[in-house]
Amino acid sequence: MIVQGKNVIRELLNSGKTINKLYVQNNLNDKVSNDLISLAKQKGVKIDFVPKVVLDRKSNHHQGFVCETTDFEYSTMEEILDSEQVGKRFLVILDGIEDPHNLGAIIRTCECAGVTGVIIPDRRACQVNDTVIKTSAGATTNIKIARVNNLNNLVLDLKKQDIWVYALELGGKNIYDTNLTGDIAIVVGSEGYGVSRLLKQNCDDVMSLMQKGKVNSLNASVAAGIAIYEALRQRC
Amino acid sequence: MIVQGKNVIRELLNSGKTINKLYVQNNLNDKVSNDLISLAKQKGVKIDFVPKVVLDRKSNHHQGFVCETTDFEYSTMEEILDSEQVGKRFLVILDGIEDPHNLGAIIRTCECAGVTGVIIPDRRACQVNDTVIKTSAGATTNIKIARVNNLNNLVLDLKKQDIWVYALELGGKNIYDTNLTGDIAIVVGSEGYGVSRLLKQNCDDVMSLMQKGKVNSLNASVAAGIAIYEALRQRC
Repeated sequence: MIVQGKNVIRELLNSGKTINKLYVQNNLNDKVSNDLISLAKQKGVKIDFVPKVVLDRKSNHHQGFVCETTDFEYSTMEEILDSEQVGKRFLVILDGIEDPHNLGAIIRTCECAGVTGVIIPDRRACQVNDTVIKTSAGATTNIKIARVNNLNNLVLDLKKQDIWVYALELGGKNIYDTNLTGDIAIVVGSEGYGVSRLLKQNCDDVMSLMQKGKVNSLNASVAAGIAIYEALRQRC
Repeated sequence: MIVQGKNVIRELLNSGKTINKLYVQNNLNDKVSNDLISLAKQKGVKIDFVPKVVLDRKSNHHQGFVCETTDFEYSTMEEILDSEQVGKRFLVILDGIEDPHNLGAIIRTCECAGVTGVIIPDRRACQVNDTVIKTSAGATTNIKIARVNNLNNLVLDLKKQDIWVYALELGGKNIYDTNLTGDIAIVVGSEGYGVSRLLKQNCDDVMSLMQKGKVNSLNASVAAGIAIYEALRQRC
Protein backbone atom coordinates (compact mmCIF):
# COMPACT_ATOMS: atom_id res chain seq x y z
CA MET A 1 0.00 0.00 0.00
CA ILE A 2 1.24 3.50 -0.90
CA VAL A 3 1.10 6.09 1.90
CA GLN A 4 1.82 9.76 1.29
CA GLY A 5 2.24 13.03 3.18
CA LYS A 6 4.49 14.21 6.01
CA ASN A 7 2.11 13.94 8.96
CA VAL A 8 0.87 10.50 8.01
CA ILE A 9 4.37 9.15 7.51
CA ARG A 10 5.57 10.67 10.81
CA GLU A 11 2.72 8.87 12.58
CA LEU A 12 3.59 5.64 10.75
CA LEU A 13 7.25 5.92 11.75
CA ASN A 14 6.40 6.63 15.38
CA SER A 15 3.93 3.76 15.48
CA GLY A 16 6.64 1.22 14.70
CA LYS A 17 4.65 -0.35 11.84
CA THR A 18 6.58 -1.84 8.95
CA ILE A 19 7.66 0.58 6.22
CA ASN A 20 9.17 -1.25 3.25
CA LYS A 21 10.78 1.79 1.68
CA LEU A 22 10.55 5.57 2.01
CA TYR A 23 10.81 7.78 -1.08
CA VAL A 24 11.85 11.37 -0.41
CA GLN A 25 12.06 14.26 -2.88
CA ASN A 26 15.77 15.00 -3.35
CA ASN A 27 15.90 18.77 -2.95
CA LEU A 28 13.98 19.34 0.28
CA ASN A 29 15.74 21.44 2.89
CA ASP A 30 13.12 22.70 5.31
CA LYS A 31 13.16 21.84 9.01
CA VAL A 32 10.06 19.63 8.97
CA SER A 33 11.44 17.54 6.10
CA ASN A 34 14.89 17.25 7.67
CA ASP A 35 13.40 16.19 11.00
CA LEU A 36 11.32 13.57 9.25
CA ILE A 37 14.33 12.22 7.36
CA SER A 38 16.31 12.03 10.63
CA LEU A 39 13.43 10.17 12.27
CA ALA A 40 13.27 7.67 9.40
CA LYS A 41 17.05 7.08 9.59
CA GLN A 42 16.83 6.64 13.34
CA LYS A 43 14.09 4.01 12.83
CA GLY A 44 16.29 2.16 10.32
CA VAL A 45 13.98 2.73 7.36
CA LYS A 46 15.52 2.43 3.89
CA ILE A 47 15.31 5.82 2.14
CA ASP A 48 15.48 6.55 -1.61
CA PHE A 49 16.01 10.19 -2.57
CA VAL A 50 14.30 10.76 -5.92
CA PRO A 51 13.27 13.67 -8.19
CA LYS A 52 9.82 15.16 -7.62
CA VAL A 53 8.55 13.70 -10.89
CA VAL A 54 9.04 10.16 -9.55
CA LEU A 55 6.84 10.94 -6.54
CA ASP A 56 4.25 12.66 -8.75
CA ARG A 57 3.90 9.39 -10.62
CA LYS A 58 3.30 7.46 -7.38
CA SER A 59 0.76 9.77 -5.76
CA ASN A 60 -0.90 13.18 -5.90
CA HIS A 61 -0.49 14.97 -2.55
CA HIS A 62 2.84 13.60 -1.38
CA GLN A 63 4.48 16.76 0.07
CA GLY A 64 7.82 15.17 -0.92
CA PHE A 65 7.26 11.96 1.06
CA VAL A 66 5.82 8.65 -0.12
CA CYS A 67 6.29 5.23 1.45
CA GLU A 68 5.33 1.67 0.80
CA THR A 69 3.86 -0.28 3.69
CA THR A 70 2.28 -3.64 4.01
CA ASP A 71 -1.53 -3.57 3.80
CA PHE A 72 -3.48 -2.13 6.70
CA GLU A 73 -3.50 -4.52 9.64
CA TYR A 74 -6.92 -4.80 11.20
CA SER A 75 -7.29 -5.77 14.85
CA THR A 76 -9.56 -8.55 16.06
CA MET A 77 -12.61 -7.86 18.25
CA GLU A 78 -10.80 -9.68 21.09
CA GLU A 79 -7.82 -7.33 20.79
CA ILE A 80 -10.12 -4.33 20.99
CA LEU A 81 -12.08 -5.62 23.98
CA ASP A 82 -8.96 -6.79 25.84
CA SER A 83 -7.22 -3.45 25.38
CA GLU A 84 -9.46 -1.60 27.83
CA GLN A 85 -10.70 -2.53 31.29
CA VAL A 86 -14.34 -3.45 31.82
CA GLY A 87 -16.40 -0.34 32.55
CA LYS A 88 -14.28 1.90 30.34
CA ARG A 89 -14.84 0.33 26.94
CA PHE A 90 -16.02 2.78 24.30
CA LEU A 91 -16.66 1.32 20.85
CA VAL A 92 -17.79 2.97 17.63
CA ILE A 93 -19.52 0.76 15.04
CA LEU A 94 -19.86 2.11 11.51
CA ASP A 95 -22.77 0.64 9.57
CA GLY A 96 -21.79 1.11 5.94
CA ILE A 97 -19.88 4.40 5.67
CA GLU A 98 -19.07 4.65 1.96
CA ASP A 99 -17.03 7.83 1.56
CA PRO A 100 -13.32 7.43 2.44
CA HIS A 101 -13.15 11.06 3.60
CA ASN A 102 -15.97 10.45 6.07
CA LEU A 103 -14.37 7.20 7.26
CA GLY A 104 -11.00 8.93 7.69
CA ALA A 105 -12.53 11.87 9.55
CA ILE A 106 -14.49 9.56 11.89
CA ILE A 107 -11.38 7.48 12.67
CA ARG A 108 -9.51 10.72 13.39
CA THR A 109 -12.27 11.83 15.77
CA CYS A 110 -12.28 8.44 17.50
CA GLU A 111 -8.52 8.62 18.04
CA CYS A 112 -8.79 12.16 19.46
CA ALA A 113 -11.59 11.11 21.79
CA GLY A 114 -9.75 8.05 23.11
CA VAL A 115 -12.23 5.54 21.67
CA THR A 116 -11.22 1.92 22.43
CA GLY A 117 -11.84 0.66 18.90
CA VAL A 118 -13.70 1.16 15.65
CA ILE A 119 -15.57 -1.66 13.92
CA ILE A 120 -16.53 -1.70 10.25
CA PRO A 121 -18.27 -4.39 8.17
CA ASP A 122 -16.10 -6.28 5.70
CA ARG A 123 -18.49 -5.72 2.79
CA ARG A 124 -20.64 -2.92 1.33
CA ALA A 125 -18.63 -0.25 3.11
CA CYS A 126 -15.42 1.69 2.61
CA GLN A 127 -12.37 -0.24 3.87
CA VAL A 128 -9.18 1.34 5.28
CA ASN A 129 -7.38 2.44 2.10
CA ASP A 130 -4.81 5.10 1.19
CA THR A 131 -7.38 7.92 1.14
CA VAL A 132 -8.76 6.92 4.54
CA ILE A 133 -5.27 6.81 6.05
CA LYS A 134 -4.41 10.22 4.58
CA THR A 135 -7.73 11.80 5.69
CA SER A 136 -7.33 10.36 9.17
CA ALA A 137 -4.08 12.38 9.50
CA GLY A 138 -2.32 9.23 10.63
CA ALA A 139 -4.89 8.31 13.27
CA THR A 140 -5.28 4.83 11.71
CA THR A 141 -1.90 3.89 13.19
CA ASN A 142 -2.95 4.82 16.74
CA ILE A 143 -6.36 3.22 17.08
CA LYS A 144 -7.58 -0.35 16.79
CA ILE A 145 -9.90 -1.01 13.85
CA ALA A 146 -11.64 -4.35 13.39
CA ARG A 147 -13.59 -5.75 10.47
CA VAL A 148 -16.48 -8.11 11.08
CA ASN A 149 -18.68 -10.17 8.80
CA ASN A 150 -22.02 -9.44 10.42
CA LEU A 151 -22.80 -6.34 12.50
CA ASN A 152 -26.04 -7.82 13.83
CA ASN A 153 -24.19 -10.77 15.38
CA LEU A 154 -21.58 -8.37 16.73
CA VAL A 155 -24.20 -6.23 18.47
CA LEU A 156 -25.89 -9.29 19.99
CA ASP A 157 -22.49 -10.48 21.23
CA LEU A 158 -21.63 -7.11 22.75
CA LYS A 159 -24.97 -6.96 24.57
CA LYS A 160 -24.24 -10.39 26.10
CA GLN A 161 -21.03 -8.87 27.46
CA ASP A 162 -23.02 -6.02 29.09
CA ILE A 163 -21.92 -3.40 26.60
CA TRP A 164 -24.77 -0.94 25.96
CA VAL A 165 -25.31 -0.38 22.26
CA TYR A 166 -26.87 2.87 21.02
CA ALA A 167 -27.87 3.61 17.43
CA LEU A 168 -27.39 7.24 16.39
CA GLU A 169 -30.46 8.01 14.30
CA LEU A 170 -33.32 10.43 13.83
CA GLY A 171 -36.42 9.72 15.92
CA GLY A 172 -34.71 8.44 19.06
CA LYS A 173 -34.40 10.00 22.49
CA ASN A 174 -32.32 13.14 22.96
CA ILE A 175 -28.63 12.23 23.20
CA TYR A 176 -28.30 14.66 26.13
CA ASP A 177 -30.78 12.52 28.08
CA THR A 178 -28.85 9.33 27.28
CA ASN A 179 -26.36 7.83 29.73
CA LEU A 180 -23.16 7.26 27.76
CA THR A 181 -20.91 6.27 30.67
CA GLY A 182 -19.62 2.75 31.31
CA ASP A 183 -19.19 0.13 28.58
CA ILE A 184 -20.88 1.46 25.45
CA ALA A 185 -20.95 1.17 21.68
CA ILE A 186 -22.32 3.87 19.38
CA VAL A 187 -23.61 2.71 15.98
CA VAL A 188 -23.31 5.33 13.22
CA GLY A 189 -25.25 4.75 10.00
CA SER A 190 -24.29 5.25 6.38
CA GLU A 191 -24.43 8.61 4.60
CA GLY A 192 -27.56 7.85 2.62
CA TYR A 193 -29.53 5.35 4.65
CA GLY A 194 -28.62 5.71 8.31
CA VAL A 195 -28.50 2.65 10.57
CA SER A 196 -30.11 -0.37 8.91
CA ARG A 197 -33.52 -1.41 10.24
CA LEU A 198 -32.59 -4.77 11.76
CA LEU A 199 -29.42 -3.43 13.34
CA LYS A 200 -31.37 -0.58 14.92
CA GLN A 201 -33.84 -3.10 16.37
CA ASN A 202 -30.98 -5.07 17.87
CA CYS A 203 -29.53 -2.02 19.64
CA ASP A 204 -30.45 -1.26 23.26
CA ASP A 205 -31.71 2.20 22.37
CA VAL A 206 -31.83 4.84 19.66
CA MET A 207 -30.51 8.33 20.38
CA SER A 208 -30.70 11.48 18.27
CA LEU A 209 -29.03 14.84 17.93
CA MET A 210 -31.19 17.95 18.30
CA GLN A 211 -32.24 19.45 14.97
CA LYS A 212 -33.43 23.05 14.89
CA GLY A 213 -33.26 23.75 11.15
CA LYS A 214 -35.18 22.91 8.01
CA VAL A 215 -32.63 20.66 6.29
CA ASN A 216 -32.27 18.44 9.35
CA SER A 217 -29.45 16.23 8.31
CA LEU A 218 -25.82 16.46 9.31
CA ASN A 219 -22.80 15.20 7.43
CA ALA A 220 -22.08 11.64 8.68
CA SER A 221 -18.64 12.47 10.08
CA VAL A 222 -19.93 15.61 11.82
CA ALA A 223 -22.86 13.73 13.39
CA ALA A 224 -20.50 10.98 14.56
CA GLY A 225 -18.12 13.60 15.99
CA ILE A 226 -20.85 15.33 17.99
CA ALA A 227 -22.08 12.01 19.44
CA ILE A 228 -18.58 10.74 20.25
CA TYR A 229 -17.67 13.98 22.00
CA GLU A 230 -20.94 14.02 23.96
CA ALA A 231 -19.95 10.57 25.24
CA LEU A 232 -16.47 11.87 26.07
CA ARG A 233 -18.01 14.83 27.96
CA GLN A 234 -20.08 12.46 30.07
CA ARG A 235 -17.19 10.06 30.64
CA CYS A 236 -14.65 12.61 31.89
CA MET B 1 -24.56 29.57 -11.12
CA ILE B 2 -25.27 25.88 -11.85
CA VAL B 3 -26.88 23.91 -9.00
CA GLN B 4 -27.35 20.14 -9.18
CA GLY B 5 -28.92 17.30 -7.23
CA LYS B 6 -32.46 16.53 -6.05
CA ASN B 7 -32.18 17.56 -2.39
CA VAL B 8 -30.43 20.83 -3.14
CA ILE B 9 -32.95 21.78 -5.81
CA ARG B 10 -35.89 20.86 -3.55
CA GLU B 11 -34.47 23.20 -0.88
CA LEU B 12 -33.96 25.92 -3.49
CA LEU B 13 -37.57 25.57 -4.73
CA ASN B 14 -38.96 25.67 -1.21
CA SER B 15 -36.83 28.69 -0.29
CA GLY B 16 -38.49 30.81 -2.98
CA LYS B 17 -35.14 31.93 -4.44
CA THR B 18 -34.99 32.67 -8.17
CA ILE B 19 -34.43 29.68 -10.45
CA ASN B 20 -33.86 30.78 -14.04
CA LYS B 21 -34.45 27.37 -15.58
CA LEU B 22 -34.66 23.75 -14.42
CA TYR B 23 -33.24 20.96 -16.59
CA VAL B 24 -34.66 17.51 -15.91
CA GLN B 25 -33.59 14.19 -17.42
CA ASN B 26 -36.39 13.12 -19.76
CA ASN B 27 -36.94 9.49 -18.77
CA LEU B 28 -37.24 9.69 -14.98
CA ASN B 29 -40.27 8.02 -13.47
CA ASP B 30 -39.58 7.45 -9.77
CA LYS B 31 -41.68 9.02 -7.04
CA VAL B 32 -39.00 11.41 -5.75
CA SER B 33 -38.39 12.78 -9.25
CA ASN B 34 -42.10 13.12 -10.03
CA ASP B 35 -42.72 14.93 -6.73
CA LEU B 36 -39.86 17.31 -7.47
CA ILE B 37 -41.17 18.03 -10.98
CA SER B 38 -44.65 18.70 -9.53
CA LEU B 39 -43.14 21.07 -6.97
CA ALA B 40 -41.23 22.96 -9.67
CA LYS B 41 -44.40 23.30 -11.79
CA GLN B 42 -46.34 24.50 -8.77
CA LYS B 43 -43.66 27.16 -8.15
CA GLY B 44 -43.94 28.31 -11.76
CA VAL B 45 -40.38 27.34 -12.70
CA LYS B 46 -39.63 26.83 -16.41
CA ILE B 47 -38.64 23.18 -16.99
CA ASP B 48 -36.69 21.74 -19.92
CA PHE B 49 -36.78 17.94 -20.25
CA VAL B 50 -33.49 16.85 -21.85
CA PRO B 51 -31.52 13.63 -22.48
CA LYS B 52 -29.10 12.53 -19.74
CA VAL B 53 -26.12 13.40 -21.94
CA VAL B 54 -27.09 17.09 -21.86
CA LEU B 55 -27.05 17.09 -18.03
CA ASP B 56 -23.76 15.16 -17.99
CA ARG B 57 -22.22 18.01 -19.96
CA LYS B 58 -23.45 20.56 -17.41
CA SER B 59 -22.45 18.81 -14.19
CA ASN B 60 -21.17 15.58 -12.68
CA HIS B 61 -23.54 14.46 -9.88
CA HIS B 62 -26.86 15.80 -11.12
CA GLN B 63 -29.20 12.87 -10.25
CA GLY B 64 -31.28 13.97 -13.25
CA PHE B 65 -31.79 17.55 -12.02
CA VAL B 66 -29.74 20.66 -12.81
CA CYS B 67 -30.83 24.28 -12.50
CA GLU B 68 -29.47 27.71 -13.21
CA THR B 69 -29.81 30.29 -10.46
CA THR B 70 -28.50 33.76 -9.97
CA ASP B 71 -25.26 33.92 -7.95
CA PHE B 72 -25.38 33.24 -4.22
CA GLU B 73 -26.87 36.17 -2.35
CA TYR B 74 -24.96 36.98 0.81
CA SER B 75 -26.68 38.69 3.71
CA THR B 76 -25.34 41.79 5.43
CA MET B 77 -24.18 41.75 9.07
CA GLU B 78 -27.15 43.97 9.91
CA GLU B 79 -29.57 41.45 8.43
CA ILE B 80 -28.00 38.68 10.51
CA LEU B 81 -28.03 40.66 13.76
CA ASP B 82 -31.57 41.99 13.21
CA SER B 83 -32.94 38.50 12.49
CA GLU B 84 -32.64 37.33 16.10
CA GLN B 85 -33.56 38.99 19.37
CA VAL B 86 -30.84 40.25 21.71
CA GLY B 87 -29.78 37.48 24.09
CA LYS B 88 -30.39 34.70 21.55
CA ARG B 89 -27.86 35.61 18.86
CA PHE B 90 -25.54 32.76 17.95
CA LEU B 91 -22.94 33.55 15.28
CA VAL B 92 -20.27 31.36 13.70
CA ILE B 93 -17.24 33.13 12.21
CA LEU B 94 -15.01 31.13 9.86
CA ASP B 95 -11.42 32.37 9.71
CA GLY B 96 -10.16 31.13 6.37
CA ILE B 97 -11.78 27.74 5.69
CA GLU B 98 -10.32 26.72 2.32
CA ASP B 99 -11.96 23.39 1.47
CA PRO B 100 -15.46 23.72 -0.05
CA HIS B 101 -16.48 20.37 1.50
CA ASN B 102 -15.58 21.65 4.96
CA LEU B 103 -17.37 24.96 4.36
CA GLY B 104 -20.47 23.13 3.08
CA ALA B 105 -20.47 20.72 6.04
CA ILE B 106 -20.08 23.58 8.55
CA ILE B 107 -22.93 25.57 6.97
CA ARG B 108 -25.07 22.41 7.11
CA THR B 109 -24.27 21.98 10.81
CA CYS B 110 -25.04 25.65 11.51
CA GLU B 111 -28.41 25.33 9.81
CA CYS B 112 -29.24 22.18 11.79
CA ALA B 113 -28.24 23.84 15.05
CA GLY B 114 -30.31 26.97 14.44
CA VAL B 115 -27.28 29.30 14.22
CA THR B 116 -28.32 32.92 13.53
CA GLY B 117 -25.71 33.51 10.84
CA VAL B 118 -22.35 32.47 9.43
CA ILE B 119 -19.66 35.00 8.58
CA ILE B 120 -16.75 34.39 6.20
CA PRO B 121 -13.97 36.72 5.02
CA ASP B 122 -14.20 37.94 1.42
CA ARG B 123 -10.60 36.98 0.60
CA ARG B 124 -8.19 34.09 1.24
CA ALA B 125 -11.03 31.68 2.01
CA CYS B 126 -13.49 29.50 0.17
CA GLN B 127 -16.58 31.43 -0.97
CA VAL B 128 -20.08 29.96 -1.37
CA ASN B 129 -19.80 28.15 -4.72
CA ASP B 130 -21.53 25.20 -6.39
CA THR B 131 -19.58 22.59 -4.39
CA VAL B 132 -20.36 24.33 -1.09
CA ILE B 133 -24.06 24.51 -1.93
CA LYS B 134 -24.10 20.83 -2.92
CA THR B 135 -22.15 19.71 0.19
CA SER B 136 -24.40 21.78 2.44
CA ALA B 137 -27.36 19.67 1.22
CA GLY B 138 -29.25 22.86 0.47
CA ALA B 139 -28.63 24.46 3.89
CA THR B 140 -27.20 27.57 2.18
CA THR B 141 -30.72 28.56 1.21
CA ASN B 142 -31.99 28.44 4.81
CA ILE B 143 -29.30 30.28 6.74
CA LYS B 144 -27.90 33.79 6.50
CA ILE B 145 -24.28 34.00 5.36
CA ALA B 146 -22.39 37.30 5.35
CA ARG B 147 -19.01 38.22 3.87
CA VAL B 148 -16.87 40.84 5.57
CA ASN B 149 -13.63 42.52 4.60
CA ASN B 150 -11.88 42.35 7.97
CA LEU B 151 -12.65 39.77 10.67
CA ASN B 152 -10.68 41.69 13.31
CA ASN B 153 -12.89 44.76 12.89
CA LEU B 154 -15.95 42.53 12.92
CA VAL B 155 -14.95 40.94 16.24
CA LEU B 156 -14.25 44.34 17.82
CA ASP B 157 -17.67 45.55 16.61
CA LEU B 158 -19.46 42.49 17.98
CA LYS B 159 -17.80 42.92 21.38
CA LYS B 160 -19.05 46.53 21.51
CA GLN B 161 -22.53 45.09 21.02
CA ASP B 162 -22.04 42.78 24.04
CA ILE B 163 -21.66 39.63 21.95
CA TRP B 164 -19.13 37.30 23.56
CA VAL B 165 -16.59 36.04 21.04
CA TYR B 166 -14.81 32.72 21.60
CA ALA B 167 -11.97 31.35 19.48
CA LEU B 168 -12.00 27.56 19.09
CA GLU B 169 -8.33 26.60 19.36
CA LEU B 170 -5.89 24.31 21.12
CA GLY B 171 -4.52 25.61 24.42
CA GLY B 172 -7.63 27.38 25.67
CA LYS B 173 -9.97 26.52 28.51
CA ASN B 174 -12.13 23.41 28.31
CA ILE B 175 -15.23 24.10 26.21
CA TYR B 176 -17.32 22.29 28.82
CA ASP B 177 -16.29 24.94 31.38
CA THR B 178 -17.21 27.76 28.99
CA ASN B 179 -20.56 29.56 29.20
CA LEU B 180 -22.00 29.52 25.69
CA THR B 181 -25.44 30.92 26.51
CA GLY B 182 -26.63 34.42 25.57
CA ASP B 183 -25.25 36.41 22.63
CA ILE B 184 -22.16 34.59 21.38
CA ALA B 185 -19.91 34.13 18.38
CA ILE B 186 -17.64 31.12 17.87
CA VAL B 187 -14.56 31.66 15.70
CA VAL B 188 -13.39 28.53 13.84
CA GLY B 189 -9.91 28.59 12.31
CA SER B 190 -8.64 27.33 8.97
CA GLU B 191 -7.73 23.70 8.30
CA GLY B 192 -3.98 24.27 8.38
CA TYR B 193 -3.36 27.22 10.64
CA GLY B 194 -6.25 27.53 13.09
CA VAL B 195 -7.45 30.97 14.20
CA SER B 196 -4.98 33.69 13.21
CA ARG B 197 -2.91 35.20 16.04
CA LEU B 198 -4.33 38.72 16.04
CA LEU B 199 -7.92 37.53 15.71
CA LYS B 200 -7.42 35.18 18.67
CA GLN B 201 -6.07 38.08 20.76
CA ASN B 202 -9.15 40.13 19.89
CA CYS B 203 -11.52 37.40 21.07
CA ASP B 204 -12.90 37.44 24.62
CA ASP B 205 -11.59 33.96 25.32
CA VAL B 206 -10.10 30.83 23.77
CA MET B 207 -11.82 27.48 24.28
CA SER B 208 -10.64 23.99 23.34
CA LEU B 209 -12.01 20.53 22.76
CA MET B 210 -10.67 17.69 24.90
CA GLN B 211 -7.99 15.63 23.17
CA LYS B 212 -7.21 12.18 24.50
CA GLY B 213 -5.23 10.74 21.58
CA LYS B 214 -1.81 11.06 20.01
CA VAL B 215 -2.75 12.75 16.74
CA ASN B 216 -4.68 15.51 18.51
CA SER B 217 -6.23 17.29 15.65
CA LEU B 218 -9.78 17.03 14.38
CA ASN B 219 -11.09 17.70 10.92
CA ALA B 220 -12.17 21.39 10.78
CA SER B 221 -15.83 20.64 10.07
CA VAL B 222 -15.97 17.98 12.82
CA ALA B 223 -14.37 20.32 15.39
CA ALA B 224 -16.79 23.10 14.40
CA GLY B 225 -19.72 20.67 14.69
CA ILE B 226 -18.75 19.55 18.19
CA ALA B 227 -18.38 23.16 19.40
CA ILE B 228 -21.62 24.34 17.77
CA TYR B 229 -23.57 21.45 19.29
CA GLU B 230 -22.05 22.01 22.73
CA ALA B 231 -23.37 25.58 22.49
CA LEU B 232 -26.77 24.24 21.40
CA ARG B 233 -26.78 21.83 24.37
CA GLN B 234 -26.16 24.70 26.77
CA ARG B 235 -28.69 26.99 25.10
CA CYS B 236 -31.66 24.57 25.10
